[in-house]
Amino acid sequence: MDETQELEERFAQLREDLARNRLQEFREQFLELHIYEQGQFYRSLDEAQRNLVYAYLSPKELADMFDVLEEDKDEIKEFLAEMRPSYAAEMLAEMYTDNAVDLLNTLPKPQVAQYLTLMETEAATEIKDLLHYEDDTAGSIMTTEYVSIVANQTVRSAMYVLKSEAAVAETIYYIYVIDQEERLVGVISLRDLIINDDDQMIQEIMSERVMSVHVGDDQEDVAQTFRDYDFLALPVTDYDDHLLGIVTVDDIIDVIDDEAASDYSGLAGVNVEEISENPIKSANRRLPWLITLLFLGMATATLISHYEQLVSKASILAVFISLITGTAGNAGTQSLAVAVRRLAMSDNKEAGIWKTIVGEVITGLFTGLITGVTIFLIVAIWKGNPILGFVIGMAMMCAITVANLAGSLIPMLMDKLGFDPAVASGPFITTLSDLTSVLIYFNIASIFMSYFLN
Amino acid sequence: MDETQELEERFAQLREDLARNRLQEFREQFLELHIYEQGQFYRSLDEAQRNLVYAYLSPKELADMFDVLEEDKDEIKEFLAEMRPSYAAEMLAEMYTDNAVDLLNTLPKPQVAQYLTLMETEAATEIKDLLHYEDDTAGSIMTTEYVSIVANQTVRSAMYVLKSEAAVAETIYYIYVIDQEERLVGVISLRDLIINDDDQMIQEIMSERVMSVHVGDDQEDVAQTFRDYDFLALPVTDYDDHLLGIVTVDDIIDVIDDEAASDYSGLAGVNVEEISENPIKSANRRLPWLITLLFLGMATATLISHYEQLVSKASILAVFISLITGTAGNAGTQSLAVAVRRLAMSDNKEAGIWKTIVGEVITGLFTGLITGVTIFLIVAIWKGNPILGFVIGMAMMCAITVANLAGSLIPMLMDKLGFDPAVASGPFITTLSDLTSVLIYFNIASIFMSYFLN
Repeated sequence: MDETQELEERFAQLREDLARNRLQEFREQFLELHIYEQGQFYRSLDEAQRNLVYAYLSPKELADMFDVLEEDKDEIKEFLAEMRPSYAAEMLAEMYTDNAVDLLNTLPKPQVAQYLTLMETEAATEIKDLLHYEDDTAGSIMTTEYVSIVANQTVRSAMYVLKSEAAVAETIYYIYVIDQEERLVGVISLRDLIINDDDQMIQEIMSERVMSVHVGDDQEDVAQTFRDYDFLALPVTDYDDHLLGIVTVDDIIDVIDDEAASDYSGLAGVNVEEISENPIKSANRRLPWLITLLFLGMATATLISHYEQLVSKASILAVFISLITGTAGNAGTQSLAVAVRRLAMSDNKEAGIWKTIVGEVITGLFTGLITGVTIFLIVAIWKGNPILGFVIGMAMMCAITVANLAGSLIPMLMDKLGFDPAVASGPFITTLSDLTSVLIYFNIASIFMSYFLN
Repeated sequence: MDETQELEERFAQLREDLARNRLQEFREQFLELHIYEQGQFYRSLDEAQRNLVYAYLSPKELADMFDVLEEDKDEIKEFLAEMRPSYAAEMLAEMYTDNAVDLLNTLPKPQVAQYLTLMETEAATEIKDLLHYEDDTAGSIMTTEYVSIVANQTVRSAMYVLKSEAAVAETIYYIYVIDQEERLVGVISLRDLIINDDDQMIQEIMSERVMSVHVGDDQEDVAQTFRDYDFLALPVTDYDDHLLGIVTVDDIIDVIDDEAASDYSGLAGVNVEEISENPIKSANRRLPWLITLLFLGMATATLISHYEQLVSKASILAVFISLITGTAGNAGTQSLAVAVRRLAMSDNKEAGIWKTIVGEVITGLFTGLITGVTIFLIVAIWKGNPILGFVIGMAMMCAITVANLAGSLIPMLMDKLGFDPAVASGPFITTLSDLTSVLIYFNIASIFMSYFLN
């Protein structure tokens, strides 16, 4: 709480400095803040105040702040629009390339072209190269600000290169060793540079088994490598082992967060990342799913409609519809979550598919058996009708088993067909399971009807 | 594929070396592997082979590998059990303290005490200190292997300290500056040390606004700070600003993964982290939830049972039960996911609670209206009965609105009461929503019954 208060006071002071045109005081105070806090302050300003900021700070100083200001793309577009184009272009050039590319990817093409024309050639070329990579690949999250050296030099001369590049590189904690054709041949950590003697040759101390990812690799696979190996950065190469860039751990945390949000969204049938303050907008985003599922649900209603005669004779059957569909839906959701998770985690997907599906069906049979026996006992005692209890229990067991089958089979199929299995949402599985459960329930009930209707 | 194959060949070679007692070759080949790959190899061995590994490798060498071997606690327990206790104790002492503590926390107390007695006093004391911290706090994930210096020295002498500690510190990329009472007064990155002149004084170049977390802080909040500030490590202090340890980004990735898995599990009503290969064990873990929800579902059945007379007169009502409960359940799940996500993300929870709930209700009214009108039209045309259509549409709208209320209110209440809101699972919300939907449906149907039964 104290820290927040202290920060608020600093912000108030900074606003005061802006209002009174105290350039020197503003710069001193502002640049003392951590870049994340600079961003918080900047976002709290109105347009007039921000225009002063653009006058008080250099494009480089603003770029440092923009490097961590990646939350709200719409907001950032607005910020760029209020800067002079040449100022904005210079700022983009000063940002880490991967972050600049992230920003540019949200802008209309003519605006991107304008900025690229205005900035110096080297930066423009680096950015253009990165703009080509497909979304969600290693290429789309890598940066080109890495430190590379050649192998036949001493630790001393490597440290010299490092010092000269330390101010602009995104990380200096791994130094990549390349050959004359810019192929990646080794890596050495700054820690190892520091521990070793100044006259030691790099080729003697570098690690030749350098772990790298391919530029077209899925960002999720890259994240998994970071998890496994606890790296802070990983080099990105092309098919011929040329070093193209590096991916750093801060970007990987964003990838992990995005993936988690997307899995969570899939399970709920709603995009939880686009949290709008406007309830009508939220409604509009949720309706497509709801209406689609409504039509799937209509299939269930049509099915029950076929059994209306049965229900009019045995209205007791209506009592248990929602219990059976609900419980099967719950079981199906559990299966779905486990299957999606297993697909995400498993390195060797092929082997596990059938094992998972068969396992889920066995789990379904077992949970179905226990749940079925429970509901048999309840109904037999409550309604004094063991045959009705048997019908409900039997239907429950079959419905749960089928729900588990659907919950595991569908995401596996989607994965096989190249779709994200997480899109097979919980609501979809429960709605589908309603249909199969009702079908099972009324078929079993038809067979035994003459027995439980005493 | 090539890399996997190459690794498999290396592993085969290593197993061959073990079989033929080629100590020197084994050590050379093994130590060339990345520690993660060492772990993969080690886990592929049988007990006899592992016993050779313990003879061939020093406790320190094995400790490096165990530092990244944190997947399966049961397996690791077994590994420890097969080592000589003094060897295991020395290995634990050589591990980073936070990882050793993680392992020890899974062992029975007498075994922990035995290891602590066998290891050298300094390591034992550090481990004992960390064993006290509560789960899920900054203290429980911090390590004590950091580099600290005092302010009144030059860059040259700081680099000297760094070199001597580089081999054992978990990170050397931030150096923490402390005063005589070991209070944290500043921080300097290795990058800044390298850029600056050797004769520069630390106090002139260190950052005095050092960001730190409190030892009792929730690990989720610590993860949020890492996300915001893109740090690689953060110092952990006590109430009096004494430096106790550091948290590193690799541990934060584990925290983020755990939180994501726990949110996902909550939504599905199943623990997706405990993925068992045994279907019966899976069933046993899922049954408690299913049976609990079965009893909640029984309330819905009992409620419908009260309306059995109504259903026997108007069996058409049974046709739409699952459509209404299903659609409301889907809407409720969407609300739940958004509410849980908003709770997890929001810094200023208090202000947002009512806003979220009111927003969700408005969203519910609007989606309910559209869905209700859709189903009204379908039923009016399909069954040629606009009044029945009105009943179904009206019930749908109210049921969806109530489901949205429940889906947002319940996680907010749980959070307020100090529970994890993610525990309010999707299956719980849908089962609860079944009850309210049926109640709404049959009440509306009772009122209009005389009109739609022509």
